[in-house]
Amino acid sequence: MLKRYLPILSWGRDYDRPTFEADLIAAVIVTIMLIPQSLAYSLLAGMPPEYGLYASVLPLLIYAVFGTSRPLAVGPVAVISLMTAAAVGKVAAQGTPEYIAAAVALAFLSGVMLVIMGFLRMGFITAFLSHPVLSGFTSAVGILIAAGQMKHFFGIQGESGGIFDILGGLWAHLGQTNGYTVVISILSLVFLFWARRGLKPRLLKAGLSERLAAILTRAAPVYAVAATILITWLFGLEGRGVRVVGTVPLGFPTPSLPPADLALWKELFVPALLIAIIGYVETISVAQTLAAKKRQRIDPDQEFIALGGASIGSAISGSFPITGGFARSVVSFEAGATTPAAGAFTAIGVALATFTLTPALYYLPQATLAATIFVSVLTLVDTKALKRTFKYAPREGIGMALTVLVTLIWGVEDGIAFGVILSIALRLWASSRPHVAELGQVPGTEHFRNVQRHRVSCAPGILSLRIDESLWFPNARFVEEMIYDRIASDESIKHVVLNCPAINHIDMSALEALEEVNDQLNDAGVRLHLSEVKGPVMDRLTRSDLITHLTGQIYLTHYDALATLAPETTQGCAHESRIETHR
Amino acid sequence: MLKRYLPILSWGRDYDRPTFEADLIAAVIVTIMLIPQSLAYSLLAGMPPEYGLYASVLPLLIYAVFGTSRPLAVGPVAVISLMTAAAVGKVAAQGTPEYIAAAVALAFLSGVMLVIMGFLRMGFITAFLSHPVLSGFTSAVGILIAAGQMKHFFGIQGESGGIFDILGGLWAHLGQTNGYTVVISILSLVFLFWARRGLKPRLLKAGLSERLAAILTRAAPVYAVAATILITWLFGLEGRGVRVVGTVPLGFPTPSLPPADLALWKELFVPALLIAIIGYVETISVAQTLAAKKRQRIDPDQEFIALGGASIGSAISGSFPITGGFARSVVSFEAGATTPAAGAFTAIGVALATFTLTPALYYLPQATLAATIFVSVLTLVDTKALKRTFKYAPREGIGMALTVLVTLIWGVEDGIAFGVILSIALRLWASSRPHVAELGQVPGTEHFRNVQRHRVSCAPGILSLRIDESLWFPNARFVEEMIYDRIASDESIKHVVLNCPAINHIDMSALEALEEVNDQLNDAGVRLHLSEVKGPVMDRLTRSDLITHLTGQIYLTHYDALATLAPETTQGCAHESRIETHR
Repeated sequence: MLKRYLPILSWGRDYDRPTFEADLIAAVIVTIMLIPQSLAYSLLAGMPPEYGLYASVLPLLIYAVFGTSRPLAVGPVAVISLMTAAAVGKVAAQGTPEYIAAAVALAFLSGVMLVIMGFLRMGFITAFLSHPVLSGFTSAVGILIAAGQMKHFFGIQGESGGIFDILGGLWAHLGQTNGYTVVISILSLVFLFWARRGLKPRLLKAGLSERLAAILTRAAPVYAVAATILITWLFGLEGRGVRVVGTVPLGFPTPSLPPADLALWKELFVPALLIAIIGYVETISVAQTLAAKKRQRIDPDQEFIALGGASIGSAISGSFPITGGFARSVVSFEAGATTPAAGAFTAIGVALATFTLTPALYYLPQATLAATIFVSVLTLVDTKALKRTFKYAPREGIGMALTVLVTLIWGVEDGIAFGVILSIALRLWASSRPHVAELGQVPGTEHFRNVQRHRVSCAPGILSLRIDESLWFPNARFVEEMIYDRIASDESIKHVVLNCPAINHIDMSALEALEEVNDQLNDAGVRLHLSEVKGPVMDRLTRSDLITHLTGQIYLTHYDALATLAPETTQGCAHESRIETHR
Repeated sequence: MLKRYLPILSWGRDYDRPTFEADLIAAVIVTIMLIPQSLAYSLLAGMPPEYGLYASVLPLLIYAVFGTSRPLAVGPVAVISLMTAAAVGKVAAQGTPEYIAAAVALAFLSGVMLVIMGFLRMGFITAFLSHPVLSGFTSAVGILIAAGQMKHFFGIQGESGGIFDILGGLWAHLGQTNGYTVVISILSLVFLFWARRGLKPRLLKAGLSERLAAILTRAAPVYAVAATILITWLFGLEGRGVRVVGTVPLGFPTPSLPPADLALWKELFVPALLIAIIGYVETISVAQTLAAKKRQRIDPDQEFIALGGASIGSAISGSFPITGGFARSVVSFEAGATTPAAGAFTAIGVALATFTLTPALYYLPQATLAATIFVSVLTLVDTKALKRTFKYAPREGIGMALTVLVTLIWGVEDGIAFGVILSIALRLWASSRPHVAELGQVPGTEHFRNVQRHRVSCAPGILSLRIDESLWFPNARFVEEMIYDRIASDESIKHVVLNCPAINHIDMSALEALEEVNDQLNDAGVRLHLSEVKGPVMDRLTRSDLITHLTGQIYLTHYDALATLAPETTQGCAHESRIETHR
């Protein structure tokens, strides 16, 4: 029991020196990557940059104790930071203590929600997010974040919200462009884009090992940060209008609890829930993928608790919502992280930086941080996914495209809500018109196939129908209408046999529809039969009145039904070895 | 084309004398029933009683032209009237011209929505209402309406809204009880309840024909109305505090269009949509049931148009939303209505009453109308449905009970919205944890069964899984987790074979989950195979990358898969005649 909630008790027991070394190396690499990222994503969340560092210590320690994924690296991530800015921006103005307090409350609330979901095993709540919706939403958020960085490249004020707000704000303020900032931005962007592809081959050519080259490449944002700090300091650019990070206090703020402001909590409830769910889904996806590669297990319920604990840890550190980062976790995995201890070592690394490096951050231009964000969020934009979805399922593709549009135009909360509702509605719509085949017998066999696709024979007065979908409320009426239509159009029908091998369940609405059909067919002089009802469906039907009221019979096989109802026309072959299942 | 939109062109051509006589008799009976009902339901909608008559002429004529159901009787109905009162009560005070204008706008809006849904063939929108939700909602509305009549029985003021508002309002005003009103109420209630069961046997005993006895019984509210008018007039009770209908103008108001008030329309948008959908679902249910009994057809898309037209007709008549009435249509059907002309004749009957009877209505006590409402809405309360649902599907039963509670406590709009969301959520939840069986071979056959239920043999190194549900976003993650869990817990597995006969479709989320599984299993040294994939599912899969990336094969039968992967352990029998489908 204790081990379930404290996975550290399992892996901690076998901890040895080789494991320690592997974790330490992974931690060093992730720390190098995490420092500029946490500063940048803090800015994205509308917080002072150093709060990103605060959010990258205690949460990592907590995850190391409670988490079940070995390489998962928690901390500030782009999507959650933008969602934080959108939610908190509605209740307070950036740069005020109220803004920070609201961000802390948001982290606390979503953390508490995650912990509760974990204890109640509410993993199914993530089931509302379909892949196309999540992918469309993430792409749109990537575009919104990238567009939101533009103002930093020009050194001007801007607007937040939808894409039109952002672009309109840019246009309005373009007159105040600061040339020095533009130069720094262009240099940073060019370097970072080049480093992604060009740096590693050069390092390898220069004789460095594959591993070292990879690490040094991952550290590219660190060089950009260091170089632009130097340039800004040398040329006194902060006196020439280049916005810099400015004074960052050494060390950590005193741990505290979030404000107990019920009105604020109520306002932040929905955003906190969205942040919890989206953060969880993103995290669990990467955790599961990396675990499966090594045949390791993660516990999705425990991950709720670990992530929730980490988020509460961020709130106690006085900072904003965090979650598991995709790129960071993959780096950690590739660098050989063997236990969650790697995360704890990363926390120590970030803590050391907080105590030593912060004075140097004074001259760091915000434009450099914006450039690192810009380059990394472009990977969120996945146009191939849209193409793939359109090809496989055009209807879901349209839903995805609309999710992208709504998110871009109206912002993150409307976007995700719209996507969820639309994907459910599309599914209900598809489910409301199931495929129905009228069946005929393949001559000389006991098999029945769609009369429109195969050369089959039908017994007169008997209508055989196979419904290729579970029966539930979206299609209950359809099934009723469909059967009434068929018997109204052919007066000779005396028996309707529903072939049910594709029906995995029948809900109450569908049961009542079948009872209604049974009654109405009876009045019209037609009997209703069922065939090939599945075991679990049959188990439930025996608890209903349909079984007792049914005017016809329930047959084990469709052949049995036809052989009983029309023995003269049904001449099956007694032995058939192959079941043809591509129908 | 014209005939599709004007069904009158079809049945009108063959109209003859016997049909005319049958329709006329049905019309007389329905008229007798409709007059007190339309007065009462008008009161329930918060309108002056005569507006119920206005709503029972033009709409019936319009339905006769556009409708496809022969016995359907449109007009004011209880549920829609209460929904009207709830919606209009939010934007205007009862008794004001604004209230009537808003009710007219509501009828117009929901009529226009219905017509649009009809042209766009949006029948699937009704698929969001499950039977348990609708039944729970209707029962709760029945209770709310019955409780709402109490104030009329005591002749006092009251509150509307949820059940606590209504009961609280009663309690607060009980001091103003009018004794004469109480006596009239008790007499009316006792008579009406007795008439339901006791009147017909007495009339039959007195030697009347079955048919005449039935008609005279249905007219019971008319006797109550006549008797209490007489009593009130004789004893001058309206001077003793008994509320009466009062002055009703002869004839009809001038036809007019609803106010073009955009702000009002926006406010009434959601209630109008709910009224349109619920009114349509109730109507189509009774229309379909009655048509099926005689192997007749109705056209659900055309019914949208006919009902929408009828509702717009009510708005033009200056009145409130109407729809098809259940009891009234059954009476019309039983009385032998043969074509929609019966409805037109009913309209003429009501119009005659409006020109002749209205002066007599002056002394009609509101308590009598309340009593007729009270007696008829109690049939809406269906406690057996709750019991039946709990027995067949306990989870849906809980959803139904909660819908009843929410509707009772918070009123009609919150109630129906809650029910719809809950029923979808419950279904997604159930779908997110599908039944999965690990399969083994029934020795000596080519059949595979659940290892936990049958004595079967498994080939070493091969995991056979059958998922008994379509794969879509609510269970995509579950399937991934489930497979990862299995391969993590058994290092010997080298092949996973998914047996897919129960999978009716695979959406994009599930496709991506399968691709992910395929990749991760590959990294873990396991191959993924599929067997018995259905034709339509296969058609779509060929458009995806999964087919090309799949590390294993797709087999026609599960036996083929096992025979290929583990030929030495798979000894099937070559000939098997019977397919056992209860799994």
